[in-house]
Amino acid sequence: MAKPRHIGVYPGTFDPITRGHLDIIERGLKLFDVLIVAVAESLSKAPLFEVDERLEMIGHEIKKYGNVRVESFDSLLMDYMRKKKATTVLRGLRVISDFEYEFQMALTNRKLDPGIETVFMMTAENYAPISSRFIKEIARLGGNLSAFVTPNVAKKLKEKYGLE
Amino acid sequence: MAKPRHIGVYPGTFDPITRGHLDIIERGLKLFDVLIVAVAESLSKAPLFEVDERLEMIGHEIKKYGNVRVESFDSLLMDYMRKKKATTVLRGLRVISDFEYEFQMALTNRKLDPGIETVFMMTAENYAPISSRFIKEIARLGGNLSAFVTPNVAKKLKEKYGLE
Amino acid sequence: MAKPRHIGVYPGTFDPITRGHLDIIERGLKLFDVLIVAVAESLSKAPLFEVDERLEMIGHEIKKYGNVRVESFDSLLMDYMRKKKATTVLRGLRVISDFEYEFQMALTNRKLDPGIETVFMMTAENYAPISSRFIKEIARLGGNLSAFVTPNVAKKLKEKYGLE
Amino acid sequence: MAKPRHIGVYPGTFDPITRGHLDIIERGLKLFDVLIVAVAESLSKAPLFEVDERLEMIGHEIKKYGNVRVESFDSLLMDYMRKKKATTVLRGLRVISDFEYEFQMALTNRKLDPGIETVFMMTAENYAPISSRFIKEIARLGGNLSAFVTPNVAKKLKEKYGLE
Amino acid sequence: MAKPRHIGVYPGTFDPITRGHLDIIERGLKLFDVLIVAVAESLSKAPLFEVDERLEMIGHEIKKYGNVRVESFDSLLMDYMRKKKATTVLRGLRVISDFEYEFQMALTNRKLDPGIETVFMMTAENYAPISSRFIKEIARLGGNLSAFVTPNVAKKLKEKYGLE
Amino acid sequence: MAKPRHIGVYPGTFDPITRGHLDIIERGLKLFDVLIVAVAESLSKAPLFEVDERLEMIGHEIKKYGNVRVESFDSLLMDYMRKKKATTVLRGLRVISDFEYEFQMALTNRKLDPGIETVFMMTAENYAPISSRFIKEIARLGGNLSAFVTPNVAKKLKEKYGLE
Repeated sequence: MAKPRHIGVYPGTFDPITRGHLDIIERGLKLFDVLIVAVAESLSKAPLFEVDERLEMIGHEIKKYGNVRVESFDSLLMDYMRKKKATTVLRGLRVISDFEYEFQMALTNRKLDPGIETVFMMTAENYAPISSRFIKEIARLGGNLSAFVTPNVAKKLKEKYGLE
Repeated sequence: MAKPRHIGVYPGTFDPITRGHLDIIERGLKLFDVLIVAVAESLSKAPLFEVDERLEMIGHEIKKYGNVRVESFDSLLMDYMRKKKATTVLRGLRVISDFEYEFQMALTNRKLDPGIETVFMMTAENYAPISSRFIKEIARLGGNLSAFVTPNVAKKLKEKYGLE
Repeated sequence: MAKPRHIGVYPGTFDPITRGHLDIIERGLKLFDVLIVAVAESLSKAPLFEVDERLEMIGHEIKKYGNVRVESFDSLLMDYMRKKKATTVLRGLRVISDFEYEFQMALTNRKLDPGIETVFMMTAENYAPISSRFIKEIARLGGNLSAFVTPNVAKKLKEKYGLE
Repeated sequence: MAKPRHIGVYPGTFDPITRGHLDIIERGLKLFDVLIVAVAESLSKAPLFEVDERLEMIGHEIKKYGNVRVESFDSLLMDYMRKKKATTVLRGLRVISDFEYEFQMALTNRKLDPGIETVFMMTAENYAPISSRFIKEIARLGGNLSAFVTPNVAKKLKEKYGLE
Repeated sequence: MAKPRHIGVYPGTFDPITRGHLDIIERGLKLFDVLIVAVAESLSKAPLFEVDERLEMIGHEIKKYGNVRVESFDSLLMDYMRKKKATTVLRGLRVISDFEYEFQMALTNRKLDPGIETVFMMTAENYAPISSRFIKEIARLGGNLSAFVTPNVAKKLKEKYGLE
Repeated sequence: MAKPRHIGVYPGTFDPITRGHLDIIERGLKLFDVLIVAVAESLSKAPLFEVDERLEMIGHEIKKYGNVRVESFDSLLMDYMRKKKATTVLRGLRVISDFEYEFQMALTNRKLDPGIETVFMMTAENYAPISSRFIKEIARLGGNLSAFVTPNVAKKLKEKYGLE
């Protein structure tokens, strides 16, 4: 009998997707048969990019990988995981404040569904300081984005801020 | 002459009260002759529950204890402490980010009134990941709240989000 | 040939300037021939004081130093640095959460311009717990501000909150 | 053609193996086709248990799992990984000080062999405070070890300290 | 019927007692009817001062307080607590690394005896950087100790290092 | 009248000097007229390299800079600073645990001599995970050291461990 496929989910807001996120996807996909990048629709804070824009930007970057796909979700992550028959959440860790938040979220999720695991990978140190908050501030002020996002995402950011 | 009663104050927003808060109350009340749960009215961010609702929910949970009562306050905590002849602030510590914030608040309060002390107790590890922010998000998305809040609070949360 | 002047920039929001900021200025000015206190105009969150008010309050405090001046800026810090021929950013460190944020900002800035350095000084422990957020809350509730800001800034805070 | 087996390595000193380690093994084995528990022989600090004792204690606990085995190693972890054709290091994270050390080790290992990844799983909160250092101290003073280690390991600890 | 006396225990190595420790004792004694300063005899690392010397130095400093006494113990802290009918452990918190260690110790102790609580107080910021390790290094090199320890302890430190 | 020369001191054990240390020296020398790399002789833990070996290795690396020199010292850093008429200590910050230790040391030094400042620079992220402890372990086990130390230091490390 065939072993079931090992499905991982990499959830986030991706507003927008950064080189740090792409680094985690590239290294994380080796752990799974299928990796789903799951874009959270429902946010307390209004995102800069609509869900469709975020899906498009991610789709553009991941089309080179055979076993990665992107979807949006608007439910509890644990409910989404069960619907997808996914057993493992993938998350990137950068700095200590990440750790705190991720620790809380992983333990909260474990209380909601003890059968689903969270695994963490370290973001490459080169991408460690990249936060969406800083990237949007740099974009707004017309700074050079090439170290932080891909050319396609840089173009979208400039369009958003009316700088193109 | 009788020793004066040792009055402790456990201040917070309690929006809403969690099992973690209740754990601190239950263990903290042993330190004091009287413990006052003090609900902060004035908040920069609009709370989900009105002060009256928060008072009611807390009152429901603490009525089993003889020496705990709940009040609201809308002044500097140090001024409220003096008015109540309370000498000790009780706070729960969960994770490192708590520590930072609590450290700042305790030292700021000490500058405002050096005669009033702050004592900390560790939240039981079982309740450590519980944050009001996550609980409200889980409630909004219809998740199971029983690990995080009491049945009465879970009911109020569901009502707020129109899920009941 | 004369060695070029060593120009440092101490950037921030200064909403309002605190005794902790003044401590960093006083100790930091020894490192540079000229130190510019640079007030960030553009803010995601609406500041309590207008840029002009913040410039005036800082100007009042630094007039006693010969080699410190205050300016506002509304561009990327790295662009502002180059325009001023400044080579070093000065930042104060208080607590661990500062460190995280400062680490990210310093590394992000280094990616934008590797020729500009960031140096950090420790805020005197006496001023370590002072955060603008707490100070504004204390001012709003009518608390004593003398441990946190100068008399002039305290007066301005009280005026803002209609308490004078 | 068959996909190559995904081999993970869980390295450590395991002096002795704790309930926290066993929790990571039980949850980590789902990520791999084979998981090797790799006991580090060479230690700056003299361990309490000989390598053979540590191998025996771990073997006793893992014999119930089909795809987990235990080995010792006395080389650079990255060299051992290549020899075993293993591509992923598994590590448990408990508290913030773990994070710092693990961050350093993972980035150092990545510099030595960029093709090998490190993944982290959170130790169940129930086992989070368990450190070998505390366990040995409790054992030495005759305390109850059942919350921290299995009965077999508790027995070995008591023998070591001549308490049996 | 009389309420039982509330006995607190402040455990540590006190090698030697610092101004930071004395600050915690002075502020902590208000929480309890009796506060016992409990000197740990058994140490992995050889202390600079013998237990008797440490007891003497502490006794010298606390004789001015009516409800504080000093004892040594050479057992599990939780066993010592029960023997003393003490219900609360008092600990000082200084910096984040303290927090980590204290968090582990408090949760470990809670597993050993859930009926005994640990409460924390913040060391005054003026004493926050004082660690026994630094103090001994400063003493060894003949530095001025008056900011860190009392004159009596400074004298004993100088005698230890043959500087008197 | 000429402005006095601004002398900085970069103290440490340098057992051995790493690429991370060299990064701090190269970026730090811009802050000062003269930068002294000060090698601490007296150590609680026995270093791998003698003071003379450490001085020689550092001298080899810094001879390309005009305003950097290396010395050893065996006294309180603050006493050494005064003897050298140096006013500023330079330290590198890598990770959070550095921060804690550095925070304590800087505040302790400030108590010993309030006229001497400590400034911090961030180690380039590429060198952030480099710790002497890990480097010595990698050297002992015959690993490739080129990412962590210069060729000259790598050669000395191999000689120490009898691998050359």
